[in-house]
Amino acid sequence: MKLDLCIIKPIIERALLEDIGTGDLTTNLMDLKDEISEVKIVVNDEGIIAGLEVAELVFKTVDPQIGFTKKVSDGESVSSSEIVAFITGKVGSVLSSERVALNFLSRLSGIATKTRKFVEKVKPFPVKIVDTRKTTPGLRILERYAVAVGGGYNHRFGLYDGILIKDNHIRIVGGVAEAVKLVKRKATHTLKIEIEVENLEQVKEAVDSGVDIIMLDNMDFPTLNEAVRFIKGNSKAIIEVSGGVSLSNVTQIAETGVDLISIGELTHSAPIVDYSLEII
Amino acid sequence: MKLDLCIIKPIIERALLEDIGTGDLTTNLMDLKDEISEVKIVVNDEGIIAGLEVAELVFKTVDPQIGFTKKVSDGESVSSSEIVAFITGKVGSVLSSERVALNFLSRLSGIATKTRKFVEKVKPFPVKIVDTRKTTPGLRILERYAVAVGGGYNHRFGLYDGILIKDNHIRIVGGVAEAVKLVKRKATHTLKIEIEVENLEQVKEAVDSGVDIIMLDNMDFPTLNEAVRFIKGNSKAIIEVSGGVSLSNVTQIAETGVDLISIGELTHSAPIVDYSLEII
Amino acid sequence: MKLDLCIIKPIIERALLEDIGTGDLTTNLMDLKDEISEVKIVVNDEGIIAGLEVAELVFKTVDPQIGFTKKVSDGESVSSSEIVAFITGKVGSVLSSERVALNFLSRLSGIATKTRKFVEKVKPFPVKIVDTRKTTPGLRILERYAVAVGGGYNHRFGLYDGILIKDNHIRIVGGVAEAVKLVKRKATHTLKIEIEVENLEQVKEAVDSGVDIIMLDNMDFPTLNEAVRFIKGNSKAIIEVSGGVSLSNVTQIAETGVDLISIGELTHSAPIVDYSLEII
Amino acid sequence: MKLDLCIIKPIIERALLEDIGTGDLTTNLMDLKDEISEVKIVVNDEGIIAGLEVAELVFKTVDPQIGFTKKVSDGESVSSSEIVAFITGKVGSVLSSERVALNFLSRLSGIATKTRKFVEKVKPFPVKIVDTRKTTPGLRILERYAVAVGGGYNHRFGLYDGILIKDNHIRIVGGVAEAVKLVKRKATHTLKIEIEVENLEQVKEAVDSGVDIIMLDNMDFPTLNEAVRFIKGNSKAIIEVSGGVSLSNVTQIAETGVDLISIGELTHSAPIVDYSLEII
Amino acid sequence: MKLDLCIIKPIIERALLEDIGTGDLTTNLMDLKDEISEVKIVVNDEGIIAGLEVAELVFKTVDPQIGFTKKVSDGESVSSSEIVAFITGKVGSVLSSERVALNFLSRLSGIATKTRKFVEKVKPFPVKIVDTRKTTPGLRILERYAVAVGGGYNHRFGLYDGILIKDNHIRIVGGVAEAVKLVKRKATHTLKIEIEVENLEQVKEAVDSGVDIIMLDNMDFPTLNEAVRFIKGNSKAIIEVSGGVSLSNVTQIAETGVDLISIGELTHSAPIVDYSLEII
Amino acid sequence: MKLDLCIIKPIIERALLEDIGTGDLTTNLMDLKDEISEVKIVVNDEGIIAGLEVAELVFKTVDPQIGFTKKVSDGESVSSSEIVAFITGKVGSVLSSERVALNFLSRLSGIATKTRKFVEKVKPFPVKIVDTRKTTPGLRILERYAVAVGGGYNHRFGLYDGILIKDNHIRIVGGVAEAVKLVKRKATHTLKIEIEVENLEQVKEAVDSGVDIIMLDNMDFPTLNEAVRFIKGNSKAIIEVSGGVSLSNVTQIAETGVDLISIGELTHSAPIVDYSLEII
Repeated sequence: MKLDLCIIKPIIERALLEDIGTGDLTTNLMDLKDEISEVKIVVNDEGIIAGLEVAELVFKTVDPQIGFTKKVSDGESVSSSEIVAFITGKVGSVLSSERVALNFLSRLSGIATKTRKFVEKVKPFPVKIVDTRKTTPGLRILERYAVAVGGGYNHRFGLYDGILIKDNHIRIVGGVAEAVKLVKRKATHTLKIEIEVENLEQVKEAVDSGVDIIMLDNMDFPTLNEAVRFIKGNSKAIIEVSGGVSLSNVTQIAETGVDLISIGELTHSAPIVDYSLEII
Repeated sequence: MKLDLCIIKPIIERALLEDIGTGDLTTNLMDLKDEISEVKIVVNDEGIIAGLEVAELVFKTVDPQIGFTKKVSDGESVSSSEIVAFITGKVGSVLSSERVALNFLSRLSGIATKTRKFVEKVKPFPVKIVDTRKTTPGLRILERYAVAVGGGYNHRFGLYDGILIKDNHIRIVGGVAEAVKLVKRKATHTLKIEIEVENLEQVKEAVDSGVDIIMLDNMDFPTLNEAVRFIKGNSKAIIEVSGGVSLSNVTQIAETGVDLISIGELTHSAPIVDYSLEII
Repeated sequence: MKLDLCIIKPIIERALLEDIGTGDLTTNLMDLKDEISEVKIVVNDEGIIAGLEVAELVFKTVDPQIGFTKKVSDGESVSSSEIVAFITGKVGSVLSSERVALNFLSRLSGIATKTRKFVEKVKPFPVKIVDTRKTTPGLRILERYAVAVGGGYNHRFGLYDGILIKDNHIRIVGGVAEAVKLVKRKATHTLKIEIEVENLEQVKEAVDSGVDIIMLDNMDFPTLNEAVRFIKGNSKAIIEVSGGVSLSNVTQIAETGVDLISIGELTHSAPIVDYSLEII
Repeated sequence: MKLDLCIIKPIIERALLEDIGTGDLTTNLMDLKDEISEVKIVVNDEGIIAGLEVAELVFKTVDPQIGFTKKVSDGESVSSSEIVAFITGKVGSVLSSERVALNFLSRLSGIATKTRKFVEKVKPFPVKIVDTRKTTPGLRILERYAVAVGGGYNHRFGLYDGILIKDNHIRIVGGVAEAVKLVKRKATHTLKIEIEVENLEQVKEAVDSGVDIIMLDNMDFPTLNEAVRFIKGNSKAIIEVSGGVSLSNVTQIAETGVDLISIGELTHSAPIVDYSLEII
Repeated sequence: MKLDLCIIKPIIERALLEDIGTGDLTTNLMDLKDEISEVKIVVNDEGIIAGLEVAELVFKTVDPQIGFTKKVSDGESVSSSEIVAFITGKVGSVLSSERVALNFLSRLSGIATKTRKFVEKVKPFPVKIVDTRKTTPGLRILERYAVAVGGGYNHRFGLYDGILIKDNHIRIVGGVAEAVKLVKRKATHTLKIEIEVENLEQVKEAVDSGVDIIMLDNMDFPTLNEAVRFIKGNSKAIIEVSGGVSLSNVTQIAETGVDLISIGELTHSAPIVDYSLEII
Repeated sequence: MKLDLCIIKPIIERALLEDIGTGDLTTNLMDLKDEISEVKIVVNDEGIIAGLEVAELVFKTVDPQIGFTKKVSDGESVSSSEIVAFITGKVGSVLSSERVALNFLSRLSGIATKTRKFVEKVKPFPVKIVDTRKTTPGLRILERYAVAVGGGYNHRFGLYDGILIKDNHIRIVGGVAEAVKLVKRKATHTLKIEIEVENLEQVKEAVDSGVDIIMLDNMDFPTLNEAVRFIKGNSKAIIEVSGGVSLSNVTQIAETGVDLISIGELTHSAPIVDYSLEII
């Protein structure tokens, strides 16, 4: 996945404004003139790195003269004490950018690392690990990128670029068949129709309604197995599993033969990978 | 701590724009007219709730007609399956707001819950748990609020409202004494001066320089104990500990007699508290 | 199609700022005090009305106290001299809003009217008239709405919510098969894959590659007929025709049995429907 | 007329955001690396070109490295199949910018072409063709530029930079004389005062009131001729005609000896000039 | 002059953001709950009040529930200790708004007061006191309003709504006649043409060129008198004096018979009128 | 004090938009092509220059190709007719930027000049001249910079980066002691606590409450002297004087031995230093 840096520019500018505000008092008070420093970014944990170009863009937004040399690339494994980048530039600019750059880098690496763990677990199976909309408000585009860096796939971006009929939609209109029928009337022809179902009865209705994707939500394993068997025997629908997925059960879910496993934890509860910046 | 809702309005609007974009396709395609629904927000984990007013504001930003009745208040303990709020309004508006509202609520509750655990650990000691600048880019004001809701205290907001001389500053100007001297020349009289030190030699220099706050960074316990003893014996400086703090060592740190313990983990690696929205 | 008025609020505010700028000189100089006037909007042409709620929102953005009573609804036929709405409010507010409101209303009605003409032509056939990305910069969401009001359907909104491999893409990567293969590797599972083809050879490659939608671009009728026959006989792909469609040939295109006809003229060259505002 | 490109930068950025949103899926999925392509823009109709620098700015906003070589200049006649510009740059950047650039170019050329037709018709007469405020919301500055490129002149930009007393103003305050009197009290001395009149009685009142410009609105030819004769005989006021002007009657209007003919159709109903982008 | 409050809303929001930032620490720390207070705004100097509605809007932007009762109106004379308004509302909201509201009120009153002094001086003469573009960056619309409140008139708003050929323009193109000729070719017919001249030779050229307004810049009295006599004898041009105008020479300038005297000091160097807010 | 030019970029852009709007009519109408001019900025008064880099940034925002050579530096004394900078660039760009650049330069120089006068007066005493929040809405960051350039010091920036208990706060909660107690509960440890007191009784309460800074507001000299003596004898609190400070009494205030004198007049009523731009 490619990250259009111009699209994330406003996110970075807001983050810098949040931290620097009307000026970096400590650094400005020291009146460091235009002294040039050489600095390295070091990782303090094991993990998968993600966001190195975002970090670079943070430094260059503060000061376009800063030089940034990557020693690794997004998606690679890094281990504690490894140097991931060298930075050269006015020391004041570098210090004022440090925290924001590391905050992005550490969070995105955390997500990529968590994703990679899930991806490794299901490697023997023809299944994809995908993200959800349970992302940090304002950072979805970056967090989806980190999932892709970790080896995962992206679900729809938001409510506007995919059709997913959920439990509450079904409840309101009175059933799976009715919900699908309503949506099909005016749906854009470029979008597939996905529905979330919770039991075998709904699975059958979903198959009958001719949806493109069926999401099996929070099913126990016997039900899940039967649902997969039924769908595969009666339709060409893509099968997605969602809800309650963890590192301990993801392999068993993959074994059922589903196509996709979507996991909120990738983005909502991944601990960071810690980095620090050191003057050489 | 009071959360000025008008200050966080733009954060909420951006989060809604990110998720809803040009429109909630699924809900709009169903053409739900103006049907009114009653809905409840239920918590699925144990924890400390934070962000209920933020969630309310999300719904009301999408549709000012939505009614929102809180059953608990920020800062209270909640347990699995508990209802935390009832919502009444047009079903389309409610469904389009759901994910963004829950994303805020679950993340802020995660931070409050993590903070409360640290606060409980050090309850017997006259020490404060404080946050750091290791927050999610764009959400600092909300995450600081969640720390306060959990019983913690806030450090400076950013680089512009506090003076903190860090290791890299000291290295550049050649020493603790020089750094403090430089900063004192023009520092605003309303701000205290804080310095981060790493060893006993620096502790002594810091005390000699007359700073207001000394942050002891990543020291082992013997050093930490000696540093605290020295500072208390020779100055009135406030003592802060930072670096490598965890639930397993925070009590031992508190026992040293420090005034403040600042912990990045409060905001950078707290797992969420899960919530869901159910139509009644 | 539903128009989320809060999504188009910024478009309206920009349009008002463009016209009113630092103030409506003429009206302000007259110092009309807070005199209340009754006003009607009258249509001066035949056509399909679209944008009445947008016009209402323009007036209410300038002055929330303005009353607006619709006499017809978007999508209805209107004929010359018909009153489409009554407005009550401070005369200064009404006059300052007039031009912007009518500019929106007349353009959207123009698009709906043009669309309806195409829709009527193909009524006997199971084919949909769809829009393109040849919209006015900044007004796409409104123009798509007007197409739907006129009885048309919407294609993808932009480059970010649909996959459409075009002639230039094919040329760069060296062929239809290669292009489809590249796109399939990481495509979000919720999106169908569409390809634009220009001759029968490409049609066959497209069918072989297993795309979901095939767009037949600018073909003469013999080729078009053969392409449709081939696709229907060998795949389940949706068939879209594009390029050179006019009111004089759209019926003949529909007769070929295609599923969709996309027409740039709907949005790029529809003459307006004229409206005026008269004080009663 | 000179187009300050920095003033239209935000319009272009919004148009790009509208089309590209969170990323050009198709192009990004193809992972075209940094391949350089040569591309030409070709016009598919006859007309007057306008907006070539706007198109250039679109490409350079997406990617400042793109090279753009104009083969013609705004205001020149172009004929079908003519190459109007060559572009060199990363193929991904070029393809992501294509639609927005062409949308601007085709619309502005449409307006310039329509304007030129009117200008040609009245060439023998000392009269100016001028635009109105019936422009596309958000694009007025560009559309006025296109009118000037086509040989027309610009009226006031909006409500804030010119004084024009219209029919509704007159009706509210009770007459031409009263309206002019009210406006004259505080009007900025740098602005002329214009009034719109509908019959000979109002023409006489306007002349008596000493306005600078009299707009004759929607008059039949006998009335128009008499109005022009009266004004010329009794004042130095500039005479403008407005309302119901078309290519078939504009010459006859010019013959009456008026100074200006303002025409909404220039901007509200000009069909586009079609362009396409082709990889060489 | 009427102040469209919706136009100045963004100016007020920026001013509040500048002062309140992430929250009013002192007031929030006091946790004043929702206590209601009654407060008065008192003026501490003599002067002309201007900006009372702006101040009201500041309070209501922070908290729409605040009640604001004006005791005087913009343009009235106020004397020391006079109460100009009563405010009721949550004490926290009132205190957080205080400084911004008073900053607007005191500056605008300062300008109105300064303007009134000039206006009084020239009362016996048929001359208008007008402002210039020497305003505070970002506050021009408000400062022009204050000038009008003080009895002055407004010049063009900016570079975009008036034509004024200045000394540097004349120098570049080589003379008054050439400059006027260039400008006349494409100037919008609704705008008068003004030129700034510095000596009698230029005055004559200006008269010959047929401009609408002649600005006599920084002339000594003999020259000024001769210039006025010449212009009045040979044209209908409006005569404006500018440069070096003070309260001590403005009457003498007025006596020369000019139409307008423009004075930068009105907006660039008016001392404030001081106000304070007191809890009752 | 260092001025981060990237932080003031939006202020400059807004000021340019305010003045240039949709284009500099006069300059554009002259069609000056791309003629290069050499220009100088000359000061017309005596004073302290401040804002030269801001002025430079104004020109470079309009046209990055403009060259700007400073002949003096911010903080230096300048005298009438002195050249402060040379500018080279397209004459159109230079003329369109002139007024905005000079407006910033003249206002900031006015503030620096006023500040320097106060600083000179108190030179013999160990006291600092500090600014207040009585700044021009929207320009606080620049005006604080000008105060520092003039030799003054900055108080807190706004309500969010300093704690200052004022008279109204004390009145609401019922007394000095109560106010301080409330604030101390949750105050960030990096901020000192300041309180404003009006009489000796409050002074004593303030000392007892252990605040860090005591602001003596509007006291007569006997009271002021006694207050200073009491505070120095009983605490280590910093002493600030505020209210009614003028050039005629500031020396006497300094003699009392206070640490800081804060003066609203520095920013709210400083007359400008006049500059003009002349083509060479």
